[in-house]
Amino acid sequence: MIAIQEVGPRDGLQNEPVRLSTAEKIAFIERLAATGLRRIEAVSFVHPERVPQMADAEAVWAGFRRASGVTYAGLVLNRRGFERARTAGVEEIHFAFGVTETFNRKNQGAAPEASFRQFAALLEEAEAAGARGRFRATLTLSVAFGCPYEGPVDEGRVVDFVRRAAEAGFDEIVLADTIGVGVPTQAARLVRRAIEATGGRVPIGVHFHNTRNTGLANVYAALEAGATVFDASVGGLGGCPFAPNATGNIATEDLVYMLEGMGVATGVDLDALIGVARWIEGKVGRRLEGMVMKAGPFRPLGAG
Amino acid sequence: MIAIQEVGPRDGLQNEPVRLSTAEKIAFIERLAATGLRRIEAVSFVHPERVPQMADAEAVWAGFRRASGVTYAGLVLNRRGFERARTAGVEEIHFAFGVTETFNRKNQGAAPEASFRQFAALLEEAEAAGARGRFRATLTLSVAFGCPYEGPVDEGRVVDFVRRAAEAGFDEIVLADTIGVGVPTQAARLVRRAIEATGGRVPIGVHFHNTRNTGLANVYAALEAGATVFDASVGGLGGCPFAPNATGNIATEDLVYMLEGMGVATGVDLDALIGVARWIEGKVGRRLEGMVMKAGPFRPLGAG
Repeated sequence: MIAIQEVGPRDGLQNEPVRLSTAEKIAFIERLAATGLRRIEAVSFVHPERVPQMADAEAVWAGFRRASGVTYAGLVLNRRGFERARTAGVEEIHFAFGVTETFNRKNQGAAPEASFRQFAALLEEAEAAGARGRFRATLTLSVAFGCPYEGPVDEGRVVDFVRRAAEAGFDEIVLADTIGVGVPTQAARLVRRAIEATGGRVPIGVHFHNTRNTGLANVYAALEAGATVFDASVGGLGGCPFAPNATGNIATEDLVYMLEGMGVATGVDLDALIGVARWIEGKVGRRLEGMVMKAGPFRPLGAG
Repeated sequence: MIAIQEVGPRDGLQNEPVRLSTAEKIAFIERLAATGLRRIEAVSFVHPERVPQMADAEAVWAGFRRASGVTYAGLVLNRRGFERARTAGVEEIHFAFGVTETFNRKNQGAAPEASFRQFAALLEEAEAAGARGRFRATLTLSVAFGCPYEGPVDEGRVVDFVRRAAEAGFDEIVLADTIGVGVPTQAARLVRRAIEATGGRVPIGVHFHNTRNTGLANVYAALEAGATVFDASVGGLGGCPFAPNATGNIATEDLVYMLEGMGVATGVDLDALIGVARWIEGKVGRRLEGMVMKAGPFRPLGAG
């Protein structure tokens, strides 16, 4: 059974220049849940000066109607964010850091090792306080397929963090191609090595950007290799801060089209999801990059 | 060894509303050859009233400077086109028909069976005339992954045409997803069955459109399954007559990026090819859909 992790409200909106109102963000999350999506990354608890689009995280989190069977998540990058998420009562906390020195120092002001140790310590503290059962913890390894500053990334370094993350008690580990440079053979190899490193005990997810059009090819390779969680953003919402003209996340409706076409059940109503893609396109006021929202599903015209 | 078949000057331009001058088409073909591409579909010999963009096929064919090591091809859909191509001295003739009744009747005014038999007869006649050695013959099976009128296409029907095409002496058989509805498992299965049906004696090619963003995923699956020829159009030039807002062929530079990233040598200079994509984008006057032409290759910024 695979899972789609919708990241439009977080990774998507965070990389759009326009700012949505709190009410619009809440409506967005509710519309997504109504399509059958079962996992939604709703907010991030990051510094409001660094990411002004997420400054109202607490209000958004408190504001949306919970849909039955849907898990909502919040992203955190450090102790302060973790505490905010815990205070808000977030049931699934997404930790993330970049696996290269330069990227993580620029983005989180810390070495990758320091970020990892801080996250592991937060899980330990929660465990000691008897609170570890109150939330699910995922870890995203950013720039695992390539770093905008350092270039190619040593796979051994990535796999080592995967192994240690499993040991530290993360419930899920996500390999992220933050800048969209990955290719399918690389995706397959990294996923296989991650599964080996964790003895298959921890679900391995993938987070692909379609910056160079390889996003769904990487999904297919990762799926074949055993990945079970797929991040995507409705409409392909978001962008790439390292390539101004480029697209961001793979589009959720394109992912759903491909998976369903291959007989992989997603539980998502594709027409409803296309409707949300068009709705949010109107809100952000630019042409989104998703393809199925333009071409439509495969509906024969008839012989007429 | 794989081959990229550049179809921008034919499938690309044919589906762009703008009309280029003969001199511009010639310059386009010459620029493509200078990037290291070794196979270029340069023109189609079709009725000028049906495809006005190709009305100057003979003049284009006669006009471009031949680059060493490059094979240029012309598309034909019937006996008249074949005769024009032979008169022009085309060394690689691309035959094509749609495998469904409705599609082929609407596009070529004939049943698929009739088109196939006519093509096979043309090869036989050339053989009898001692002229078969003067041209290479490829056969493209259009709408092999789905028909805009009839919907899903029976794979057995496609595979049967593949087997008969090999028996009829075609040098290469191309499975075309003309409307961009295919998914990777389907691509892998069709390619495997085509190779089985021909006993591996005839190269199997694939022609994917990226209409629903599955183009490169299908390439990867087809490559793994044993396909050796990949059609693509620089910049993703072209469109989809059945989905007005949708993109057409996969972009050659995106294909090159992915293949080279996987260690599959293409012989193409990616930067030069991006240059041609931007040049032709200026000529057609609309934003093309290729991604690597916007994001660029993977070039780290340095730690600075």
